[in-house]
Amino acid sequence: MSGAIDRLKQALGPKGWVEDEADLEPYREERRGKYRGLTRFVARPATVGQVAEVVRICAEAGLPVVPQGGNTGLVGGTVTAESEIVLSTDRLDRIRDIDPLDNTITVEAGVILQRVQEAADDADRLFPLSLGAEGSCRIGGNLSSNAGGTGVLRYGNARDLTLGLEVVLPDGRVWNGLRRLRKDNTGYDLKQLFIGAEGTLGIITAAVLKLFPKPRQVETALVGLADPQSALRLLSNARSDSGDTVSAFELMGRTGVDFAVQHVHGVSDPMGDRYPWYVLIELASPIDDGRLRETMETMLGTALEREIIQDAVIAANRDQEQRLWRLREAVVEGQLSEGGSIKHDVSVPVSRVPDFIDQATRAVEAWLPGIRPCAFGHVGDGNIHFNLSQPVGMDRQAYLDRWDEASRIVHDIAAELDGSISAEHGIGIMKRDELPLRKDAVALDLMRRIKDCLDPEELMNPGKVLKARRQPSSDL
Amino acid sequence: MSGAIDRLKQALGPKGWVEDEADLEPYREERRGKYRGLTRFVARPATVGQVAEVVRICAEAGLPVVPQGGNTGLVGGTVTAESEIVLSTDRLDRIRDIDPLDNTITVEAGVILQRVQEAADDADRLFPLSLGAEGSCRIGGNLSSNAGGTGVLRYGNARDLTLGLEVVLPDGRVWNGLRRLRKDNTGYDLKQLFIGAEGTLGIITAAVLKLFPKPRQVETALVGLADPQSALRLLSNARSDSGDTVSAFELMGRTGVDFAVQHVHGVSDPMGDRYPWYVLIELASPIDDGRLRETMETMLGTALEREIIQDAVIAANRDQEQRLWRLREAVVEGQLSEGGSIKHDVSVPVSRVPDFIDQATRAVEAWLPGIRPCAFGHVGDGNIHFNLSQPVGMDRQAYLDRWDEASRIVHDIAAELDGSISAEHGIGIMKRDELPLRKDAVALDLMRRIKDCLDPEELMNPGKVLKARRQPSSDL
Repeated sequence: MSGAIDRLKQALGPKGWVEDEADLEPYREERRGKYRGLTRFVARPATVGQVAEVVRICAEAGLPVVPQGGNTGLVGGTVTAESEIVLSTDRLDRIRDIDPLDNTITVEAGVILQRVQEAADDADRLFPLSLGAEGSCRIGGNLSSNAGGTGVLRYGNARDLTLGLEVVLPDGRVWNGLRRLRKDNTGYDLKQLFIGAEGTLGIITAAVLKLFPKPRQVETALVGLADPQSALRLLSNARSDSGDTVSAFELMGRTGVDFAVQHVHGVSDPMGDRYPWYVLIELASPIDDGRLRETMETMLGTALEREIIQDAVIAANRDQEQRLWRLREAVVEGQLSEGGSIKHDVSVPVSRVPDFIDQATRAVEAWLPGIRPCAFGHVGDGNIHFNLSQPVGMDRQAYLDRWDEASRIVHDIAAELDGSISAEHGIGIMKRDELPLRKDAVALDLMRRIKDCLDPEELMNPGKVLKARRQPSSDL
Repeated sequence: MSGAIDRLKQALGPKGWVEDEADLEPYREERRGKYRGLTRFVARPATVGQVAEVVRICAEAGLPVVPQGGNTGLVGGTVTAESEIVLSTDRLDRIRDIDPLDNTITVEAGVILQRVQEAADDADRLFPLSLGAEGSCRIGGNLSSNAGGTGVLRYGNARDLTLGLEVVLPDGRVWNGLRRLRKDNTGYDLKQLFIGAEGTLGIITAAVLKLFPKPRQVETALVGLADPQSALRLLSNARSDSGDTVSAFELMGRTGVDFAVQHVHGVSDPMGDRYPWYVLIELASPIDDGRLRETMETMLGTALEREIIQDAVIAANRDQEQRLWRLREAVVEGQLSEGGSIKHDVSVPVSRVPDFIDQATRAVEAWLPGIRPCAFGHVGDGNIHFNLSQPVGMDRQAYLDRWDEASRIVHDIAAELDGSISAEHGIGIMKRDELPLRKDAVALDLMRRIKDCLDPEELMNPGKVLKARRQPSSDL
């Protein structure tokens, strides 16, 4: 196998690979610390030609390849065995083109999401994909995991934002599908295969993405309400009363807000009174007529009158707006200080969100008295991050050891409500072995057949999403 | 083979099949008269179970199946050889569920598009797919061909409107993917394989579709302008000045308007003066604030001032609105009275639309003096129906015999501009043999591999999209 490594080094040039133990660390670490990669070699190609060359050499040598972007995934999708190499996209970071008239931007896989947003902004356009890790995740990873985030309600997920792809196939051939067409019905829509496939069918090296008119007005408000059912009613009214300008609708339970206020510097209780639930609501309009504030006021006023909500504050300026968003992010951060947290990324049909939260809360409280459910999420997409902080005083590790037990309870309820065990994070290795229990057998068989068809040697991110047929060897 | 037909009859029951010559006619005819089906047997299953049974029997007998919806396609996608049976979805016509809170509707494949629109309307929602054949095309066909139409600019094409599918696979198994989730990242997005595959990978039997808030205000206007370049400028301004409420933006050349006025009953010249080009523009907003008219007026006023457009009329009431849309439809109808028409369904990046129209017009005029290009289409999607009426006095058939020659010229220019030879109509058999000349070889190879993987016996709509490996036998 060292022959293959030598060939890789030669193809990649001096800056194109990492072998030193210390330098390998960032490529082995996983954000949550749940998994640890063991790779001994990282390829860092700088061009699509080099990606193809790496894949070709690996295909010839039977060497498995794990593509890695910003390494911010949450399901162990880029973890490596000792016998696998990492193909990092961190040097594939050119913005190839931006066209405000076509409303498109063409970027290489390694461009950091925030840079895509900034480039769009510079061209007076919006690239609406937005999520917690945007300062370090890379767009290739966002596409490979079909990332969601806070803008899905209005603009769709990563899949919906993609017009064209360039992909290196498992045999090293390059498929150039970098079209910027809004309509193209010339055969199977191949790009759909690679989006959300978590690198198991090929390596996305570049993409043409959609841009949108930039919002000229944004209004942000926080409301306090009694329960998730009220949040749903508010969403429905907000969509129809605001000209469908709702661009974010984030639900947070009081427990999460408590954690944020207690533990995160600079975050204070957002309203005079405490409410069981909160919604961060954002309206955004590309028209600059100064009327969006009025729309927000009218909509919230009506909701107050009808007792759908109990209180509301509208951000008066950019600073207050940022403070409301800071609270939303602090809900995630605050949990870190409350011991172990067992996390879920569940979705259900939008109308079932209240049922899900209600049933799942009761079930986990019955399972482990003292457990502290901390539900938040993108309720407009039916996506709930149902995170469970440990009971006060319980041993952290003893709690985390019961992760699978908790997940079974939560996922059973999601499944019962026609939901999904992974709304936006993907499968990786974390949910791989659960997938066969949750997914239609015919669907699984189709997935298997597609994997076998495109990657018969199982060299692309083996063992992610689907179980590998072969055991990884360790003769690197 | 008659054994298989007997088994089919038994499985389908008395109303479930057609064999009589006269009754077969509607299933053999093709709208444009370019192709003619030769099938001797039509299966009309009424349930997904019966569809599965039909496909199973056919798989066992090696009998090819051609799925057919409303039979309104334009590329010969449902034409049959003598040895093939038609599987019609015309009895699969239940609306299984509609949920205004989830904004979803679940329909069987045979439901006529207009019925889906009406059911949504009854539930105070919008199903935005809209196209000429909506009174007779069936939703399964719309999905299988990834239909476009006039609402794509705002709402996307059929693919974008689909949340879940139920599909009978080539081996007769049923994949139940009828999810109504807005986010679901549990493995490969299988529904994408079947949408736009023109029935070559399986038969779509039902779908969960997205609904939207119903527009409360609609404003429609017709503008006269100098050239397609001005239309693009207008579009860009309209999108940013109207709060992105542009819901239709249809370009029409004067030739098509002339044909409409001359030949279509009740259609008159829309403005006092004649203009080289026209755009039908529609704004739609789900908010009922009575301000959309003002938005339209301001937007068009500014465009007049800046000399982007030369004239404009805004429909004052529902009747005038319908008359403007009638003109748009009459552009298609009017061509029928001008002899042979060679039609193209091309797309290019939006910014290249003026280049395309300009170059293609000059090229065909040089090729055949007197030819009358009649370009119209969904310019906001870069989709131009570049139809060419024959020179006055030329023999109709002699003209139509030169279809391929004309198409080569038009498609060469589209390809040069990074465009597509089929924006929304699909490939069928009409463009099948051209596809290998226009499409990336790697893409074609991937398509072939997917076809072989899902339908190894080539029994699902063989010879459509991709050339069949086997010749159809005629021993039915």
